[in-house]
Amino acid sequence: MSTRSLNSEVTFARIHGAVTAPAGFRAAGIACGIKRNGNSDLALIVSECPAASAGVFTLNKAQAAPVAVSKERLAASGGHGRVIVINSGCANACTGPEGRRTAEIMADAAAAAAFVDPSQVLVASTGVIGVALDREAVTAGIASAAASLSSGGGPDAARAIMTTDPFPKEAAVEVTIANGSFRVGGIAKGSGMIEPLMATMLAVLTTDAAVDPALLQRALTAVVDDTFNAITVDGECSTNDCVFALANGASGVAITDKDFDLFVNALRRVAEPLAMDIVRGGEGATKLITIEVTGAQSDAEAKMAARAIANSPLVKTAVHGADPNWGRLVAVAGRAGVAFDLDRTRIQIGDVELFAGGRPYDERAPEASEHLKQREVVLRVDLGTDGAGRARMWTCDLSADYVKINAEYRT
Amino acid sequence: MSTRSLNSEVTFARIHGAVTAPAGFRAAGIACGIKRNGNSDLALIVSECPAASAGVFTLNKAQAAPVAVSKERLAASGGHGRVIVINSGCANACTGPEGRRTAEIMADAAAAAAFVDPSQVLVASTGVIGVALDREAVTAGIASAAASLSSGGGPDAARAIMTTDPFPKEAAVEVTIANGSFRVGGIAKGSGMIEPLMATMLAVLTTDAAVDPALLQRALTAVVDDTFNAITVDGECSTNDCVFALANGASGVAITDKDFDLFVNALRRVAEPLAMDIVRGGEGATKLITIEVTGAQSDAEAKMAARAIANSPLVKTAVHGADPNWGRLVAVAGRAGVAFDLDRTRIQIGDVELFAGGRPYDERAPEASEHLKQREVVLRVDLGTDGAGRARMWTCDLSADYVKINAEYRT
Repeated sequence: MSTRSLNSEVTFARIHGAVTAPAGFRAAGIACGIKRNGNSDLALIVSECPAASAGVFTLNKAQAAPVAVSKERLAASGGHGRVIVINSGCANACTGPEGRRTAEIMADAAAAAAFVDPSQVLVASTGVIGVALDREAVTAGIASAAASLSSGGGPDAARAIMTTDPFPKEAAVEVTIANGSFRVGGIAKGSGMIEPLMATMLAVLTTDAAVDPALLQRALTAVVDDTFNAITVDGECSTNDCVFALANGASGVAITDKDFDLFVNALRRVAEPLAMDIVRGGEGATKLITIEVTGAQSDAEAKMAARAIANSPLVKTAVHGADPNWGRLVAVAGRAGVAFDLDRTRIQIGDVELFAGGRPYDERAPEASEHLKQREVVLRVDLGTDGAGRARMWTCDLSADYVKINAEYRT
Repeated sequence: MSTRSLNSEVTFARIHGAVTAPAGFRAAGIACGIKRNGNSDLALIVSECPAASAGVFTLNKAQAAPVAVSKERLAASGGHGRVIVINSGCANACTGPEGRRTAEIMADAAAAAAFVDPSQVLVASTGVIGVALDREAVTAGIASAAASLSSGGGPDAARAIMTTDPFPKEAAVEVTIANGSFRVGGIAKGSGMIEPLMATMLAVLTTDAAVDPALLQRALTAVVDDTFNAITVDGECSTNDCVFALANGASGVAITDKDFDLFVNALRRVAEPLAMDIVRGGEGATKLITIEVTGAQSDAEAKMAARAIANSPLVKTAVHGADPNWGRLVAVAGRAGVAFDLDRTRIQIGDVELFAGGRPYDERAPEASEHLKQREVVLRVDLGTDGAGRARMWTCDLSADYVKINAEYRT
């Protein structure tokens, strides 16, 4: 499938291959014994040539050891990282100086295995908090992963970073422009503790375009704001989560300042489906909910209202039960701390308007309920102010399974 | 049971009778057909003599018609209301000008039935949003309730304001001081949409002390902040909720400025158990969770952290499963937007310290799990700053029944 952009010289085509879809990247995903069930738990992603790197990190003040180490190494390399190592099954968070040392050993082992400078490694962990990460298992695993690196290893890496995710998350596009083509690939994992007030899951984007580190960081930050930062499963923000990007130039296409919008668009076409897949795979989720807020005083106020709706347990349970309970949407909009005019607000479920001009239209409830029975649903709230602020967020419904998964996570 | 205060001249004794425990109050709770199942759904509370009145109202901008009417009449009477009328089963919210008129008719009917000026009535509604309140049922119900008013009617009024509450909530104390005694009584209802960023349930406090309206308002605001505003079930703030207070002086005891602390203390001894009962009766709740935060830069930051913990679905599900998952407490404290030092933070479940000095003490987890199996549990988080800020909040666990109740509320 290819779609033509408004700029007729550019086309985007969805392709396979995840983080190894772009040229010059190799990856592996293997099992090294961190997960007791023997599932794969270690991913290694390597650019064969020098690359630019960028990262967006959790705002949680209880940041995990690998987050601190990645920030330092990203700075030390001047944005020229080219190796990413990620384990699942253990978050290496709240593990004190020993955990910090383990994250450093993990990064150093990946550097040695890939024959790069230690500063050129980014490291991440995901899983249970407060448990020591087994150094021997991880370092042996890195050696094993390095031996199985391949240009088709992207999907294996996607599987190796899963925790409670019900399915792996990968996406890639080929971007054809006047003077050539380049590719963007990505992987991500969820699936609880998802509220990216910054970045609160793990994702890796790769591209074979040549991009200056500062430009790559700027583009990544812009894309994360509209994608990974516009999703929420449960309002939680994790200690560990990061989005990394690597750009190695292997396609021969160079991105400069004038191509910024095009490049952000290309990254978004990988990041957005990954973000939506994180919500689809949210703990206990049965539905993907898109929330569109309009009529706000500003985009920021629209996002505040959208976030409040996305995190409302009463909204999420109503959608779970296919109950077109527009009253809960009004109530959340009213408490969201933003400008709001009850007499002019409008509530739509799908395309069905249920509340407008201060009065309900409950005769349309059956039609709205039919919409809510689908797997992908849309809730639209116009706050009724004279502003043009708007925002979009994605969330999932709240089911009894979410409770079950999280009441029994460690037992 | 009586307890002696630090001031040896004052004793507090818990008594029965709810809002009619104080002298000079009569109440009734009857069924007038708003609830289809025939349960009682209309409460009337009347002071036999002139009284001072005060109110604390929801901050939700989508305020229901009765909230607007009560605010206006409270102002019009100059704080001299003496009648409260409350229906359950229908919130009369998002009902437009017709709903507004219904709330006025309801207040006027109560004024006529109790032979008081229309400005002396406070009115509240609770139940489903966006459904028209049946005027004929309510006005007939008010006449019927007025005919059955009695000095023992407090518990009936407590039952008549219930919606999904599993049990009625009432409390009363007798306060003996050097020159006499007075009483404070109260009723309240929950039990979802409970996050009192202001006041988000219904409660009525009565006292037979004589209190100036301004002093009564000041005392009520102070008490609500530490009680009804320190609980959360699901982080939601309703369109309807109010706390009312009436003081009629029938005891002969007059409260003046110098007695402010004593009077606040007396109100708190009724408001605090009512607030805790709202949490105990939270939708799907199986446990009462007390959250104590210390070591914050300020009391306000401590309250922010306590509120974030109290609303965390991961914390609430872990407690539901008796999982001493201190990592989730660290993660929430780290994302709460307050000063926090991971190396100095301390986490206790009950009296069991599970994380301190940057390291876990998981060998103590079984003991902490035993604590969590009880019906009333305590989570203590010290944020590790050099500040002395502290706060306490109450919440309940998150169970699959919460999801069930709210996915099927209208079906």
